[in-house]
Parts: sequence; C-alpha cells; structure tokens
Amino acid sequence: MKTMAEELFKEFREHSVSEFFRKNAAMLGYTGKIRSLTTIVHEGVTNSIDAAEETGVLPKISVMIKRVNDEPEHFRIVVEDNASGIPREYIPNVFGKMLAGTKLHRYMQSRGQQGIGVSGSVMFGQITSGKPATVTTSTGKGEIVRADVMIDVDRNEGKILNEEKFKGKWQGTRVEIEAKGVSYMRSRYGPFNYLRMTAISNPHVHITFVEPDGTLTVFENATDKVPERPKPMPLHPWGIMSDDLLILAKHTKGRNVVNFLSAELSRVSKRKAEEVCKLADVPPNKKPSQLTWEEAERIVSAFKQVKLYAPPTSGLRPIGAADIESGMRQILNPEFVYAINRPPKVYRGGLPFIVEVGVAYGGSAGKMTEGKGENEEGETGMELIRFANRAPLIFDQGGCAITTAMRSIDWRRYGVDSATAPLTLFVNVASAYVPYTSAGKQSIADEPEVLDEVRTAIMEAARELRRFLYRKIKTKERQERAGVFEKYLPIIAQKAARLAGVKEPDIKPLLKKVAGVENGEEEN
Amino acid sequence: MKTMAEELFKEFREHSVSEFFRKNAAMLGYTGKIRSLTTIVHEGVTNSIDAAEETGVLPKISVMIKRVNDEPEHFRIVVEDNASGIPREYIPNVFGKMLAGTKLHRYMQSRGQQGIGVSGSVMFGQITSGKPATVTTSTGKGEIVRADVMIDVDRNEGKILNEEKFKGKWQGTRVEIEAKGVSYMRSRYGPFNYLRMTAISNPHVHITFVEPDGTLTVFENATDKVPERPKPMPLHPWGIMSDDLLILAKHTKGRNVVNFLSAELSRVSKRKAEEVCKLADVPPNKKPSQLTWEEAERIVSAFKQVKLYAPPTSGLRPIGAADIESGMRQILNPEFVYAINRPPKVYRGGLPFIVEVGVAYGGSAGKMTEGKGENEEGETGMELIRFANRAPLIFDQGGCAITTAMRSIDWRRYGVDSATAPLTLFVNVASAYVPYTSAGKQSIADEPEVLDEVRTAIMEAARELRRFLYRKIKTKERQERAGVFEKYLPIIAQKAARLAGVKEPDIKPLLKKVAGVENGEEEN
Repeated sequence: MKTMAEELFKEFREHSVSEFFRKNAAMLGYTGKIRSLTTIVHEGVTNSIDAAEETGVLPKISVMIKRVNDEPEHFRIVVEDNASGIPREYIPNVFGKMLAGTKLHRYMQSRGQQGIGVSGSVMFGQITSGKPATVTTSTGKGEIVRADVMIDVDRNEGKILNEEKFKGKWQGTRVEIEAKGVSYMRSRYGPFNYLRMTAISNPHVHITFVEPDGTLTVFENATDKVPERPKPMPLHPWGIMSDDLLILAKHTKGRNVVNFLSAELSRVSKRKAEEVCKLADVPPNKKPSQLTWEEAERIVSAFKQVKLYAPPTSGLRPIGAADIESGMRQILNPEFVYAINRPPKVYRGGLPFIVEVGVAYGGSAGKMTEGKGENEEGETGMELIRFANRAPLIFDQGGCAITTAMRSIDWRRYGVDSATAPLTLFVNVASAYVPYTSAGKQSIADEPEVLDEVRTAIMEAARELRRFLYRKIKTKERQERAGVFEKYLPIIAQKAARLAGVKEPDIKPLLKKVAGVENGEEEN
Repeated sequence: MKTMAEELFKEFREHSVSEFFRKNAAMLGYTGKIRSLTTIVHEGVTNSIDAAEETGVLPKISVMIKRVNDEPEHFRIVVEDNASGIPREYIPNVFGKMLAGTKLHRYMQSRGQQGIGVSGSVMFGQITSGKPATVTTSTGKGEIVRADVMIDVDRNEGKILNEEKFKGKWQGTRVEIEAKGVSYMRSRYGPFNYLRMTAISNPHVHITFVEPDGTLTVFENATDKVPERPKPMPLHPWGIMSDDLLILAKHTKGRNVVNFLSAELSRVSKRKAEEVCKLADVPPNKKPSQLTWEEAERIVSAFKQVKLYAPPTSGLRPIGAADIESGMRQILNPEFVYAINRPPKVYRGGLPFIVEVGVAYGGSAGKMTEGKGENEEGETGMELIRFANRAPLIFDQGGCAITTAMRSIDWRRYGVDSATAPLTLFVNVASAYVPYTSAGKQSIADEPEVLDEVRTAIMEAARELRRFLYRKIKTKERQERAGVFEKYLPIIAQKAARLAGVKEPDIKPLLKKVAGVENGEEEN
C-alpha cells in the first residue's frame, strides 16, 4: 500500500524561472493596465541607456507606442537605441532567457542588475498578445539582423521564429513588443511622465517619443558630454561574507590565496593579503579552490582587524548637483531650486552608494501629487520623485526607504506645510548594487545606512530651503513696510510743507534710501 | 577587429535561480537580523502546517531556537511536524531546489504557493553558517532517514552530504537550519509574536516553542476538529487568458476541445463547451494541442458570452467568525470583540477569495503598535494584524492592500481616534492564489477587487464597533447621572423631611427604580 507521502509527492514538479514569473508577473511590475505598459517602456529604455553608456556613446533613444488594429487595449511598443548592437548568437538568450545577461555578476552601476527585465517584457507581450518580440540589431559591420523571438516558458529558453538579414550601415538595437490588456494614459504613472523623469535625471540622453495619437515629443539632451563608461568595482573586504569569498575563490585566476585576495578584492595589496593570511592562520600559498569554510571565516574576520582604505567609489556615476538643479529648473520653472550631492557612504559593510537630493519650490513644483494627472490644475502639496541609478521609480512608493526617510522628517521645522507646499523633492540613490525590495525594482529596501543617509541628505537640502523661505517672508514684510512709506511719506511731506508754509521738499532720495535699507542694500 | 558588441557580450552569463536569490536574499525576506530569523521560522512553520493539513491530521508543530557555541548571532532553528513525511528520493529537491514543489502548479489554498520558501532558508543557512540543513523524516513505514542537505547554487540542485537510516515508528519531518548574523528578540517582528499570530489564526494547530533561553511556551489548539483537506480548484473560464488556455491544452488528457474544456475548467459542462466551440467557430473535435492562438482568443471571448455559474469556492478554507473571535478574546482579553466572514468574491475575473475581519476593543487590544515590543507597557493606538491564508504577514505593512484599505477609512465616523484607540483590527484574505507583491510573501498587491472587498469588510465590522462604542458612552453618561441621584437624593429627602417636620421616607426603592431606568432595564 502506498503511504500518504507517496500519494502527496506524486504532485511534485520542477518549474522554470520563466514559468514562475509568468504566474507572478506582478512581481516584475506587470500589474494594472497602465503600469504594465510603463513597465515595458521602462525595461526597454533602461536597457538602451545602459547599453549606450557601456558602448561609450551619447544615448539617443527613440520610443514609439502605436495602437494595433484600433483596439483600445492593444499596443505595439518600440524602443530603439544607438548602442553597440547585439551579436546574432546572443539574441535568443538576451530576449528569451530570464536570469541571463552581462550585469548580474558584476558590481557595476547600471540601471539593470538582474538579467530579467527585457525577457520579462517579451514574456508579457507573448502571454497577452500571442505575438513574438521583433528584434532588429546591428553591431555596425554592415549587416542588420531582424529576428522574431519567443520564450519557451517551460525551458526558460529563447527561440527565434523568423529571421532576416540585410545590408545597412546602421548600428544599434530596436525592440518591438506587442501587448494586449494594457492602456495608455498621460498620468503620473504613464510612459510620458516616465520619460520626462528620465530626462530630468539623465541630461545627457536624447529621447524622442511618439504617443499613440501621433504626438511627437523630443526631450533634448542638455549636455553633449558622454559620461565616463561605468566600471565594474571589485567587492571590498568589509562587505563580503565567507560564502562570497569561497565563490570568488572557485572562479579566480589567482593561483594562491595571496594572489587571489589582492586580485579579486578592492583595496587589498599583496602585503595586506599576506598580513591577513597570517592573522587568519591560513597558508598564503594555499590554492584558493581548497579554502575551507572555517578558513574563509577567519579571513573575513582578519580583514576587520587590519587597516584598509574605504571602498573605492570611482565607479559610481551620480548625476551631480548642477545637473539636478538645471533639470528641475527646466521642467518645474521654480522660484527656488537647490541640490546637493553627498560624499559616498557604504552599506552592509562594503557596498558604496551616493545620495543626491534636490528641492524645488514654487512654479510647477508640488503639482504632480500622487494620483493626479500631471497636467491637471489644482492643489499643490509636497511631492517626491525617486530615482535609483538615474532610473525613475514611479511605483511602490509606500514601501520605499526614500519615502520612509521623507516621512520621518518634521517638515514644520523647515517652515514647510507638507500638505500644501508647492515643493518637489528629488532623490537619487546611485550604487553598483541597489537593494531593491523586489524583482520589479520600484522600491529600495530599508537598509539602515541607506535610510539614514537619505534622511541626512534631505535635511541638508531642507535647511537651504528654510533659509530661502525665511528670506522670502522677510522680503515680503519689508516690501510691505516699504509700501507703507511709499504711500504715506509723500502725503506727510505735502501736509507738513503746507502747515509750515514752505515749499514741498523732494522726498525721492529719502524714499530711495528707505527702500534700499529695506532691501538689505545698506545692511553691510 | 572585434566590434564593441563582441567585446561587451563576452560578459554575457546565465545564472541559476538560486544564484539570483542568493544575491537578492532580501526579496525572500532575508533582510535584517531579526526578520531573517523570523523568516526561517515562517517558512518552516507554514510548510509544516500545509503538510499536516494535506495529510489530514491535526497539526502538531514544534519549534526550537538554540544558540550555537554561545555566540550572540549564531542560532540553530528546528521545526518539526507530524505530517506525511517525505519520501527519500524527494529530499534533495524539496530542500535544495528552488521553484520545485507540490503547490506551484495547483490552484489550492495553501500557505506556500511558490516552491521557493524552504529552499530559501536552507540557502540562507548555508551562506551565513556554511552548514547544511539537517532533515529527519519518515513516511511512517518504520524507517527514519536523516540527511544533511546543501544547495549547489550554480546548478540550483540539492545535494545530500551525509545520510543515515534507522528504525522507528515515528512519522513526520524535522528540519534543522543553522544561521549566523541573525538575532533573537521578543519584539513584534520576532518569532514569538509570529507564532502567537499563527495560533490566533489557526485554532486547530498545536505549537510548542522553546526560546534560546530555554523558556517553553505551548500554544494549545483550541479545537480538535481536523479541518477539511484543501482541494485543488480548476480555473474558472472568467479568470483565464488565451495563453493559460493553450498551456492547459498542452498538458490535458482530454482528446478533443470539448472534453478538454469541460475537464480542465470549473463550471463547464460538455454542453457548455459545445456551445462555446460553436460561438468561437472552433471545431469541437479538434485536438487540444493543435489549438491556435486565434482560436484560444475566440474561446476566451466566447466564454464571456455564455451563462456560467460563478467560480466554486468549496476549496477555500476561511477561519470563520467564531474562531477569529475566540482567538482574539483569548489573546487580547478585550471588552468587545466582533468578527465577520464575508461571502466569496472574485478578482481578475476568475480567482475566488474570501475576506474575514475581526475587531477587538479594550483589554490588550491596540498595544502592539508598530515598532513597540509586545510586552511593553504604554500607549495604545489602532493596530492592524494581517493574514493571508491564515499565515501572519508581519513585514512590509506599508505596501500591502490591507493597509491601504484600513488607511482609506475615515475612522472618526466610527467614533474611533485611530491614534489612541485600544483597537486591534484583524484581517485574513483566503484564496487559492494570493497576489503577493514579492517572493517574500509579506504583502498583498493592490488588486482593485481585493482592496474594495477588504475595505467593505472592515467597514462592516467597524459599524458594529460603533454601536458598541455608542452604547459604552451612553452607559457611562447614565451611570454618571445615576451617581448624581444616588448622591443627592438621600440628602434632599432628609432635608425635605426635616423642613416638613415629617419622618424621613425610605428612598431605597426609588433609587433602585431610577438606577433600573438608567441601566435600560425598563426601557422596553
């Protein structure tokens, strides 16, 4: 007779990662008709900008959303870039295999870091419209490839259905995805706002956008400077665990522990590595692949006893205060704008990150408050726009460390009524590894060091805002007082002159002097 | 010369799902020292209760957390159950392969639904302590297996390191995981509170818990009734997309479309299937595996034109209002408790779910407000406890649909000051498929139907609370008035008697009558 266990375990199955995300597409951001469409645009655009930056060219991105067959919820989304192009043999895996890519295993600041994104949109297109994605790409050698790609969900594999090759001198990649059950809107959560946010945080990127009704918008690049190419950053000893060390040891080219440690970790010279081996009681000539768990643990704790330079931050690519200010000025046309770029910090012991914050007051600031369309007139109120490695985070605001940091601040201390102030707060977190809360990458986990640093950065920017608001109030009071003089001084002068029977004096120089004092000109 | 693309794509790699979650352990709930420990307990306990319920026995779970080598952040977590046990050949995959299990492919109400959980804790143990998990299990045939299991992260495969077999009459499974870098606390976010919440929502489960300091706590089962075994529920035509239909068609045993539709979907008789084939212009005798995308689309829309019974809800296993009330009464000892169990609803067109809500007022209600230890004295305030399929959700509260629903309610309309009220709100969402926002399964996505239904359910319960609070105020006012009579009536009687020169009357019957009226006894 069969046991209950044998009966129950007949149902035991293995599943592919594509199958998992097919069933749990919401975890990738495919939830709701508007968000799903924006997610497709987001995956295409972040990949394209990353690719152009890696190629070392100024990113030129073109996005087009076309209605298919005049059906209300059926669209074709096209994203094209001017990056390196994709060699033919990689096409199936780039677009049809989840957890495959060039970024997951390198600590390098990039918008993507998981190897799921674009395959996720190919899958979403396929399960809603039944259609493959069409990829057109050329690496610039004169041959252009166009291929239709689908995902074999059971096997997590890309399959090419049709393929054409033709001649041409273009270089870049164009991805077309057809999706049903999605809808286009110009709301805060729609593709238009997503691209606008991208333009604010990426002044070097040129974006052309064609909406379903044919409207063309060009977000011009504000600078022609190609940013430095991103650089992989080796892990720093402070941020690694024994398990990381053993995985590095398995794949290293270093032939002994000393070579291995100095080659694979940052800030570790051969001499430091020797010092650590001694402290950890590990033979310096041991083959890295033969390190035991206990030895790895001893190495990790020995690293905490020696002096090391802090993790390098040369690979981080923040936006910079000047560019944040000009971006906000351009879009929001505010009375006041101020941005700061904080020095690098480290979380989990060894992962460097930089926080940048901008504040804008007045103009169109504070007018895109959650839930309202961006073109709607009406109330203002403090508004938060979040970025991670320059990519806009427009969903899952509630669960994000940036939101938690903002809410933890007593804004009245800065002279701000958060319910009504015409205020936009801009926060960007740049890191080779952003601790996202889920595969949808729309919110940052509450890592204590990240949370604290965002909070500190916001308060630093808010202090400057407070100074501005204080001056604004003072100026207003002075102007009111100056107004009083201007109005009554001539009358008093006239009446006094008449009473005294003398000629009315010229009080203009006096008025000017009073106004000068009131405007602070003679205060020094 | 190599193109830039060839250069860049040298870095292209494939990754296993284990490797992905190793790097992104936070997505599985391994973030922070306390939460990581609670997550291990959560994965073990939910698996154990699911297994016992599937076996058809009253779950008896034993949890033990032991300090290892007296180190402050190094623990051994043991979870044991009395379920079916696991056949030897499944051990490596159950504990060492992610995306493998008995639940992912069946629509059945269970606490787990992803096939990641327990392998995730094996992995977390392994990457922090370097130690395998130890699994002891027997299917009740007299042989007990004990095996040490590790995950080969590169391959996403379980490996058995050591194995022993011995004789014994026990049946069940015991999993032991060693983890470092975690800490034990009796806070709202710790294992003790997690198990207490589990006891409230699972009155049929017996839990024994031994804390690191040796303290033994027994959460007795409040009922001896074994709940009905969970039942897989076929998908309902309203909830499927063309892609789902084609995947079902690929795996069905039905030899033609009519057999296929009636066998694989709920509420579809052969006659309905024929009607649908006709409407969709699909030959009823076609082999299911030969259905095209267009035919599948036509079938999906034809289903919307025929009359069907609503999705079956017989497989759902809510807690029930009576059990919620007795659970809350037992733990919170409140002045007032009220629970409701709403009729089933459907989201995304075809996925049934049930919402249950309990409110408790007074006693210890409202005393576990976010961030405070559960034993701390002090302030009260509205507190929310969330459950999905009876499993407590104690993290990621901000991003959960239940929280959004609660916050969207104007509590003053129910006589509640949410900042100070001694109020605990209990919400359970039961479904064969809970739309979690991430693989960590601690918050529910904002599916509009789920959000609306939770909101409606909370308001229904809140109306009963308002009645109670109204009566409470009235009673207090009456008591105050009665107090006034009781105090002054005797004095008035005395003085009046003296003035009139008569004997003081016996006013006790009068007082009693007044008090009776004030307590409402004579109101009818």
